[in-house]
Order: sequence, then C-alpha cells, then structure tokens
Amino acid sequence: MGTIHRFNGEEDNFNWEGAIPRDYCKPGTRGAEGKILIGKADGATNFIVRYFRVAPGGSSAPESHPHDHGIVILHGRARILLGEKEVEAGPRDAIYISPNEAHQIQPIGDEPLGFLCIVPPKDSEIG
Amino acid sequence: MGTIHRFNGEEDNFNWEGAIPRDYCKPGTRGAEGKILIGKADGATNFIVRYFRVAPGGSSAPESHPHDHGIVILHGRARILLGEKEVEAGPRDAIYISPNEAHQIQPIGDEPLGFLCIVPPKDSEIG
Repeated sequence: MGTIHRFNGEEDNFNWEGAIPRDYCKPGTRGAEGKILIGKADGATNFIVRYFRVAPGGSSAPESHPHDHGIVILHGRARILLGEKEVEAGPRDAIYISPNEAHQIQPIGDEPLGFLCIVPPKDSEIG
Repeated sequence: MGTIHRFNGEEDNFNWEGAIPRDYCKPGTRGAEGKILIGKADGATNFIVRYFRVAPGGSSAPESHPHDHGIVILHGRARILLGEKEVEAGPRDAIYISPNEAHQIQPIGDEPLGFLCIVPPKDSEIG
C-alpha cells in the first residue's frame, strides 16, 4: 500500500504529514534536525528518504561511513566537504556522497539549509 | 569520489550538469521525459535518483513492477494512481509506491509536472 506524506509546513519550517522526527545529535552536530519522509513505516525496504534542516551557523556531523548518500538541496545554500574537496551547492543541486567518503554539510549565510538525503536502509534510519 | 550535479536549468526547463537524459517511451506514456541525477555513472550502487517531467495533458505509463518508488514533487500538481486509490499531490509532497503496486502519474492543469523518483538500482535505470 502506497502512502503520501503531504507537505504541511511553511517556507521557514518544512514539515510533512506523517514525517517521523528523529534526534540528530552526533558529535560535531550543531543546529541540525532530521525527519524521515519515506522509510520503514511506509514499508520501504530499499531506500530511506529523509529531510534535514541545518540552522545558520550550524553543521552536520563530520563523518564517514560505509553507506552512501544522495542529496538534493531544497532551500538555502551549502558548503559541503566531499572527501578532500569542498563544494558549494544551492537549491535543486544534486550531490552524491560515496561510501566511506568524509563529508560535512554546513549552511552558507543567514538562511537555514534544507535538503533531502537518501540512504540505503539501515537500522537507525539516521546517519 | 563524490559528485555534484549543479542545477543549470530554468523554471520551465529543469536540468542539471551531468544529468543523463533517458528515453522514456513505455506504452501509455505521453509527454514524459526522464533524467538520471544520481546513478551508476556516479558509482551509486544502492539507489538511483531521477527527475521526470510530464507535460500538461501527458502521463507516465500505467504500470506495476517489483521495485518500489520514492517520489518527491518538485513543481506542478499531480494526480497519482496508487493501487486502488487516487491521490492529488503538489510541490514537496512525498509519495511511496510499494513493490507491485499499480501506479500512474499525470499532471493536473496547465503546468508541467516535475518530480524526483528514487528507485533501487536496476539495469535500465528507468521504470
């Protein structure tokens, strides 16, 4: 049975019906929060679609891990550590983070950053 | 090595650097085109992120298949057949289409419909 999670947020506060808020408090994280849009609760076993919001001045955790990420920026601008390089990205840009590649995502400027992050299924649904 | 596909399109003609255009001409398809944003060319083996655009009056193919879909609407409004129900969706709405669930996606109104479609890896990268 398919499901729909309707956007019910506002321009500065994205949210979706049935999205599952998850704590995101790894070491080095500042001002970041995550929501699962499509995941195990929907019966999805092949991928998880999450939304992350990072407040101005905040950051995702600096990390690397065996699972990869597919990122699509929804709002704001980002500085992204991608292995040994650093890239800037804005709305609609798509970024692939390879398995075991060091990465960290930070907003640029005074606007919050929001992005979709796709991962293969994993126990925590966050990471 | 991670990759970035920068959005380089326009409001009525979405495109990304390095996106791979793919024919999308299954029986029943009208006015639809697909692009791979993140896929095998990036080294991604766990998921594929595609963008589809369907022109007003057009439609994706009516189909069902063993792989599931994660959909996030980017622009326009959609009427989506989802198994035995029909839902309407708009920008930012997230839809999960289960394995083997009948589905078909059509734009509502005079605007083209554009959406991200995530699938597990498969030979064709389209479907």
